[in-house]
Amino acid sequence: MKFLKTIKVKEFKEILESVPILRNEEEKVDIEESFNRIISRDVISEINVPHFRKSRMDGYACIAENTFGAEEDNFIELELIEVIQAGDIPQKSLIKGQCSYVATGAAIPENANSVVMVEFTEKEGNSILISKAVTPGTYIIEIGHDIKEKSIIVKKESLVDLATMGILASAGSKEVWVFKQPKVSLLSTGNEIVSQDVKNLEIGKIYDVNSVVLKRAIENTGVLVNYLGIINDDYEELKSALDKALEISDIVILSGGTSKGEGDLGPQVLGKYDDIEIMVHGVKIKPGKPIIFTKLKKKIIFILPGYPTSALSCFYVFIDNFLRRLSGYPLKDRFSKKFELGERIYSTVGRHEFKAVKIKEENGNKKIFPIKTGSEAMSTIFLADGYIEIEELESVLERGDTRRVYFF
Amino acid sequence: MKFLKTIKVKEFKEILESVPILRNEEEKVDIEESFNRIISRDVISEINVPHFRKSRMDGYACIAENTFGAEEDNFIELELIEVIQAGDIPQKSLIKGQCSYVATGAAIPENANSVVMVEFTEKEGNSILISKAVTPGTYIIEIGHDIKEKSIIVKKESLVDLATMGILASAGSKEVWVFKQPKVSLLSTGNEIVSQDVKNLEIGKIYDVNSVVLKRAIENTGVLVNYLGIINDDYEELKSALDKALEISDIVILSGGTSKGEGDLGPQVLGKYDDIEIMVHGVKIKPGKPIIFTKLKKKIIFILPGYPTSALSCFYVFIDNFLRRLSGYPLKDRFSKKFELGERIYSTVGRHEFKAVKIKEENGNKKIFPIKTGSEAMSTIFLADGYIEIEELESVLERGDTRRVYFF
Repeated sequence: MKFLKTIKVKEFKEILESVPILRNEEEKVDIEESFNRIISRDVISEINVPHFRKSRMDGYACIAENTFGAEEDNFIELELIEVIQAGDIPQKSLIKGQCSYVATGAAIPENANSVVMVEFTEKEGNSILISKAVTPGTYIIEIGHDIKEKSIIVKKESLVDLATMGILASAGSKEVWVFKQPKVSLLSTGNEIVSQDVKNLEIGKIYDVNSVVLKRAIENTGVLVNYLGIINDDYEELKSALDKALEISDIVILSGGTSKGEGDLGPQVLGKYDDIEIMVHGVKIKPGKPIIFTKLKKKIIFILPGYPTSALSCFYVFIDNFLRRLSGYPLKDRFSKKFELGERIYSTVGRHEFKAVKIKEENGNKKIFPIKTGSEAMSTIFLADGYIEIEELESVLERGDTRRVYFF
Repeated sequence: MKFLKTIKVKEFKEILESVPILRNEEEKVDIEESFNRIISRDVISEINVPHFRKSRMDGYACIAENTFGAEEDNFIELELIEVIQAGDIPQKSLIKGQCSYVATGAAIPENANSVVMVEFTEKEGNSILISKAVTPGTYIIEIGHDIKEKSIIVKKESLVDLATMGILASAGSKEVWVFKQPKVSLLSTGNEIVSQDVKNLEIGKIYDVNSVVLKRAIENTGVLVNYLGIINDDYEELKSALDKALEISDIVILSGGTSKGEGDLGPQVLGKYDDIEIMVHGVKIKPGKPIIFTKLKKKIIFILPGYPTSALSCFYVFIDNFLRRLSGYPLKDRFSKKFELGERIYSTVGRHEFKAVKIKEENGNKKIFPIKTGSEAMSTIFLADGYIEIEELESVLERGDTRRVYFF
């Protein structure tokens, strides 16, 4: 077992990025449910799209050669033999001197090789007067113009976006093979944590925030989340919850239990698994000390700090895009912009700090101000617009310094 | 009835932006389901958070004055009377010379006014040797530090993000009042349209793409979507489908039936409603000619072009953020960047064109290339990276010109 004591942000990010993406199991889903999923097999179209020659315009399908010489002052007359609306099956083939009305998208009758736009015609009973000659092929959409039969329309490993759904639907797919989503189990640990079902909180107890917030945050990355509830600080209880979580999921996220006090069972329990491969105990950041355990059996366990603000910060900085990479979801580009500091900010030397800040106007300029509460308060992240990063060796940022704010 | 023939992109956008946001009806939802919803009533916390004094650190809760004078070479001894883990209810009050162990987050015993970090102590049986004096208040989180009882924690009209869910959960909320989501009905019109359930397409028929793609696109804006199916080009059928849609929804989106051929029933049917207020027939854009009807009864009807590529383009450019504004969802900032044209592009004078383009490398530079197919092909938008806008009066863009690409 590799045991790393505490590591830097950069190292932690590298470890996370080195975790291989496992995509093995597949499932068939309705194309309506395929949005943001990853295609697991090349999709081959069984049909040409369109599978019939159709008109690009409202007009008269005809034999182009019959219109040659038509001009504004030299109408050529064709006999209208049929009206073909979109969806109709043409009933008559054209012969010399004939035409059929075709709506946009309607099938072209046999023998027609062009369409004259309505704008260049006049109708007199069953006679259509053509005022403009057309060349063969004009305004005709040929068979397979959009999609060719037997061609690969969507490649394996593609992310399904709206246009991909469109291509699949055009080709008549009802279902599509996709990779299964990674499964994540979430546990809240701590004797102090109680559910919102409890009405009167006892002294010492606090409401479980991570089950609500982390659950949703994790869901937003395109994985399946299984919330396994609140686990007491009890060795046996935590061990059996972890066993279950490892059995049913690819990734386990625990919140709470990462500090070094007497009540920290998480690392203790995890140390007992024989096949733990890499264990990182603590990343030098503030707030929080996330831990990652990578197991031999390709399962990954994170322990996030118990304070919801710390847990959510760690999630934003490390876990969000990690999970998106595994699920195949589009990565999150955190919007950022530079501003001046409106106030001096202190930081702890030796830890890379993600400091919650607010942007406020001062003398007409937008400036950065620190949030006064810390990771112990949920309101810290609630009141913040984003965070700034403060390097390990910086202890004071002066008013007037310029910093990049990463917005939530 | 105001009848506007065809209008420009700018006018259409102005009309869309002038549509008032209607938020009247409320519903109570579980906080787990409140993400991206709009709060309909100020939320007041019924509790202080924390509702007890707690420790910010693992350490010894004591009476600060008892530690005065303690230094590395001058330990002060306190008697350990209790161990308080997070979640425990303290059983003993302190008197002079005593201390209780407190874990991070644990309740502070009565009479304690500070916590000495474990790092500045040594333990010898029941004696705790303190090597650093602390001032009153050190490492104590006071009652209501995070949230004050009876204070407004989330204001009416707020969008619920993860931090908002956190604040609500911290205060013990299980449910929250939110505005109901706007209801959108979606209809595909056209005799040529058939569902993917049909296995062998007849000549003249095509698969329904908009029901899948537009449905998902609309869902992504935070509204509720009701797909009412494929409606034939039949006056009575469309009228009764529209009547139903207007009854059950705030917004109706029809796809198909906007061109001026004989089969265009949409505008015809809509013109029959007495209380149509503004009717825009056609926006001078390519691809497509979207229509908006605003009804007196505050219902809005869009007719989008039938071609899926046109419908999706119109959706991206006009409808996406319109619906997000109504639902309260975060608006979509379309990422854009300037590139050089790798090839000449032609455009139709008199229409503002949204031209699908691809970015390809040429001699080491990323350049813009037009997609060769048009709005008739779903592959056009599938193969495109984004679009460029071409002004109404531009007919040719030359190779080497610089244009902004808006990415999908």
